[in-house]
Amino acid sequence: MWIYEKKLQYPVKVSTCNPMLAKYLIEQYGGADGELSAALRYLNQRYAIPDKVIGLLTDIGTEEFAHLEMIATMVYKLTKDAKPEQMEEAGLGDFYVNHDNALYYNNASGVPWTASYIQAKGDPIADLYEDIAAEEKARATYQWIIDMSDDPDLNDGLKFLREREVVHSQRFREAVEMLKEERDRQKIF
Amino acid sequence: MWIYEKKLQYPVKVSTCNPMLAKYLIEQYGGADGELSAALRYLNQRYAIPDKVIGLLTDIGTEEFAHLEMIATMVYKLTKDAKPEQMEEAGLGDFYVNHDNALYYNNASGVPWTASYIQAKGDPIADLYEDIAAEEKARATYQWIIDMSDDPDLNDGLKFLREREVVHSQRFREAVEMLKEERDRQKIF
Amino acid sequence: MWIYEKKLQYPVKVSTCNPMLAKYLIEQYGGADGELSAALRYLNQRYAIPDKVIGLLTDIGTEEFAHLEMIATMVYKLTKDAKPEQMEEAGLGDFYVNHDNALYYNNASGVPWTASYIQAKGDPIADLYEDIAAEEKARATYQWIIDMSDDPDLNDGLKFLREREVVHSQRFREAVEMLKEERDRQKIF
Amino acid sequence: MWIYEKKLQYPVKVSTCNPMLAKYLIEQYGGADGELSAALRYLNQRYAIPDKVIGLLTDIGTEEFAHLEMIATMVYKLTKDAKPEQMEEAGLGDFYVNHDNALYYNNASGVPWTASYIQAKGDPIADLYEDIAAEEKARATYQWIIDMSDDPDLNDGLKFLREREVVHSQRFREAVEMLKEERDRQKIF
Amino acid sequence: MWIYEKKLQYPVKVSTCNPMLAKYLIEQYGGADGELSAALRYLNQRYAIPDKVIGLLTDIGTEEFAHLEMIATMVYKLTKDAKPEQMEEAGLGDFYVNHDNALYYNNASGVPWTASYIQAKGDPIADLYEDIAAEEKARATYQWIIDMSDDPDLNDGLKFLREREVVHSQRFREAVEMLKEERDRQKIF
Amino acid sequence: MWIYEKKLQYPVKVSTCNPMLAKYLIEQYGGADGELSAALRYLNQRYAIPDKVIGLLTDIGTEEFAHLEMIATMVYKLTKDAKPEQMEEAGLGDFYVNHDNALYYNNASGVPWTASYIQAKGDPIADLYEDIAAEEKARATYQWIIDMSDDPDLNDGLKFLREREVVHSQRFREAVEMLKEERDRQKIF
Repeated sequence: MWIYEKKLQYPVKVSTCNPMLAKYLIEQYGGADGELSAALRYLNQRYAIPDKVIGLLTDIGTEEFAHLEMIATMVYKLTKDAKPEQMEEAGLGDFYVNHDNALYYNNASGVPWTASYIQAKGDPIADLYEDIAAEEKARATYQWIIDMSDDPDLNDGLKFLREREVVHSQRFREAVEMLKEERDRQKIF
Repeated sequence: MWIYEKKLQYPVKVSTCNPMLAKYLIEQYGGADGELSAALRYLNQRYAIPDKVIGLLTDIGTEEFAHLEMIATMVYKLTKDAKPEQMEEAGLGDFYVNHDNALYYNNASGVPWTASYIQAKGDPIADLYEDIAAEEKARATYQWIIDMSDDPDLNDGLKFLREREVVHSQRFREAVEMLKEERDRQKIF
Repeated sequence: MWIYEKKLQYPVKVSTCNPMLAKYLIEQYGGADGELSAALRYLNQRYAIPDKVIGLLTDIGTEEFAHLEMIATMVYKLTKDAKPEQMEEAGLGDFYVNHDNALYYNNASGVPWTASYIQAKGDPIADLYEDIAAEEKARATYQWIIDMSDDPDLNDGLKFLREREVVHSQRFREAVEMLKEERDRQKIF
Repeated sequence: MWIYEKKLQYPVKVSTCNPMLAKYLIEQYGGADGELSAALRYLNQRYAIPDKVIGLLTDIGTEEFAHLEMIATMVYKLTKDAKPEQMEEAGLGDFYVNHDNALYYNNASGVPWTASYIQAKGDPIADLYEDIAAEEKARATYQWIIDMSDDPDLNDGLKFLREREVVHSQRFREAVEMLKEERDRQKIF
Repeated sequence: MWIYEKKLQYPVKVSTCNPMLAKYLIEQYGGADGELSAALRYLNQRYAIPDKVIGLLTDIGTEEFAHLEMIATMVYKLTKDAKPEQMEEAGLGDFYVNHDNALYYNNASGVPWTASYIQAKGDPIADLYEDIAAEEKARATYQWIIDMSDDPDLNDGLKFLREREVVHSQRFREAVEMLKEERDRQKIF
Repeated sequence: MWIYEKKLQYPVKVSTCNPMLAKYLIEQYGGADGELSAALRYLNQRYAIPDKVIGLLTDIGTEEFAHLEMIATMVYKLTKDAKPEQMEEAGLGDFYVNHDNALYYNNASGVPWTASYIQAKGDPIADLYEDIAAEEKARATYQWIIDMSDDPDLNDGLKFLREREVVHSQRFREAVEMLKEERDRQKIF
């Protein structure tokens, strides 16, 4: 089970109300390679994976929920003072008529999140490569959003998150190598 | 952010390996009215809701993740020792070829979870009725699963979870009445 | 069965060709909380609900089809004279290449309608709370669209529809209280 | 708008409680080529089609709703007395835990209905061929269900519905030929 | 099996970097009536269709893959030199944060391709009408895109593709008439 | 463009009519990690990837279409002589009423294929890890199907396909290492 602690993993600031940037950033909230995908993927894989990898999946999965909360806070701060006209100008008129200034788990194009984005195969090697790929794709997504952003405060948070994906990718690579070595020691087939 | 504590909210036991029951139970893992829907719905609504309801949504949303973990543990215990033939006999052959004995966020029919199941409107009254409806639907789902189950150990856990939904429904009803009273006091239109 | 009567439930007028407004309004045609969701939800729930609520569901479900026709007429009037360039300027270029100036059951972001938006649990209390939530969410959606619109003729129709949702919500609340009272009289558990 | 008349287009009888048959029949309720697809497709196409075809689409679209109601009644009669164990034996255990003995717009495999099944192009020839194809596919679906059924009472209703699809297909073929002739008379390109 | 030949079926040119046009054109890449739908539909229908139609389906299905490659090349040429700001101005900022300047199988609104767009009924008449409808819908889509385009080089390629759909439609009509004649000769029912 | 050659990449045999096995095997036709996903993923990534990897993606993508054709042939051979009752007994009654004995791009649970299963990020490292993960997941899926199968003729074909995935995975790993080395040589950041 999880205990909620009322603080963010890393402080979140935005320079100004900027719904256009929120529109892009929501890709990491409810998009294919966003934080929701990450958290749900890792926590779900914990059950059919060798014991020695469970802790890693729990740690990273839990951290991804903290990232999801950071993204939610960023999106909210970028839009909370936006009037309907500003939402409209930012291309968020379609979002506004459905959700007002609330949040929702969809990608930047408005497509709702689906579990089809993630996988669990019960094969540890396959699952860990899925996880490495996920981290690399999340890293790329942060890069494309940073390319679009000229908000230095927001970018500080986004760069922190991008770096965490690089670290996670490295840890999953170590785990897959460890399991492959072990497999090679144990069986000859 | 959340801190993981390595224990379940309520102890989970199953009497025997029973993949058929797992097939039904997964409805509460990745189905329309399951625990994933509940947790993600409430935590997402926290941003555009009056301050006095945020704590309630955080508390219940966090608890629903604990429920999700209980369901995951139940499903895993019911299937972890099942051989492919047993999965097949239980109507889980389709699940097995995709996921082996791992878990996945789909409903009992194998349909992947989608955010289309949940909503956030930025209107507190609408959002809280969405939440009441969610709890009532989750309660009904637990009932239909209990109808299908003859595992007394599992049913003990399911009854605990069903009762929690009743409590949550009551708390959301209190919240909506509080907001309606406040609204009626404040404006005349 | 239904008999078609060639008139609208309430007269529909629009002040001017305005495809941008059509883009938002289509949320109530093929969106999560739109009239299609409403009509299909209520008519589908009629079979496993106590007899005394069937008439209510039939009446409101049938009326929602009349509302769906009103929305269709509004969307059509707002776009029928729009040239491709006007569609493009209104952010409907993506819609145009797929559907020209025809209608389609998608939301304002272009996501096709899915039955995942609606539910039927076979539990009358749960189903009626689903319906109350639906009406409250539809009311909010009309409000957000009215916020975006400066067409007084269109707004007249939208306000009529918004008021109908308020009435329906009230009737579903009365129905759920009636069923709860009856349940409490009948069983002690 | 539509007026509800409390009778079915054609009398519906079933010989016995038979949830397995209900499982197959639901394909015509919420499946790709079922009555919901038909009704929604035709009524939606009415706005961007030449005036002389609107009446045909309204008539057939309205009749398809009557067919949808017949299918709903059939499914309900086949399952209303089924106990959970009978639902389970018929392969409807997954449906039961989600919906009890209620109805839902999904296909025989449990996939929720999506508007992606239908289309409107704003090109009358294309739209009418879409409609002919729809009727031919519905006809085939009725045939495959009749192949599965040994309930003579049910089959009587299904054969009526299959014949109506043949008639509709013929009427759409006449409409497309009429429009093609007219087009050929009017323009040379 | 297929052999790749490193050339396009018809030469593809674009006059200038034009991401807005790419946004529309992607409808024929990953949209409901695009080339992916066409290729996958025909090749999939080959197995349960009378022998004399298999060759036609293989030929046209294989050609549609060549068309898909032409569309991919067009979209890539229209966007490969576009900077993030240009993608944003063209309404492709949402696409960019997910895919950078890569391609993806979604429609112009960003909705991922789904097999729900296509069908195979095992009934040759129904399947061939599905195919005729598909070609007519594809023809209409090319027309709506040409309406939006002022790039003469691109339009040359699009007109070639539109004409191929007309030819395919004609060939499927001949096939369905042939099968109907044969059916009428063989059985009297 | 592609040229069709009327032969399979590897001969396909099945020992006996076995629709149950077809039900599982269809996972590799229209499932998340099946051959359709593979072919479409690689061919789509060719445009925004460094030139030296394009050939590899074209080769493997084209081969995956040959695999898709092998799977189609296997599924067809396993079901073509199955009567409706046999389809029903194999748990394919739901498939039969929708598609008769035709094929369709869905997974073993009947969920239609969606492009949400695949990704293209425009970042070569991320894309190649996506591809490695895809091959590992496909390998696992073949393993789970072989676990379910006691048809030695079919298994011969499945083992051939499983081995090809291992080879492809290796080639993608070499490609990603090559690109990483090159990147490390070129920039210091």
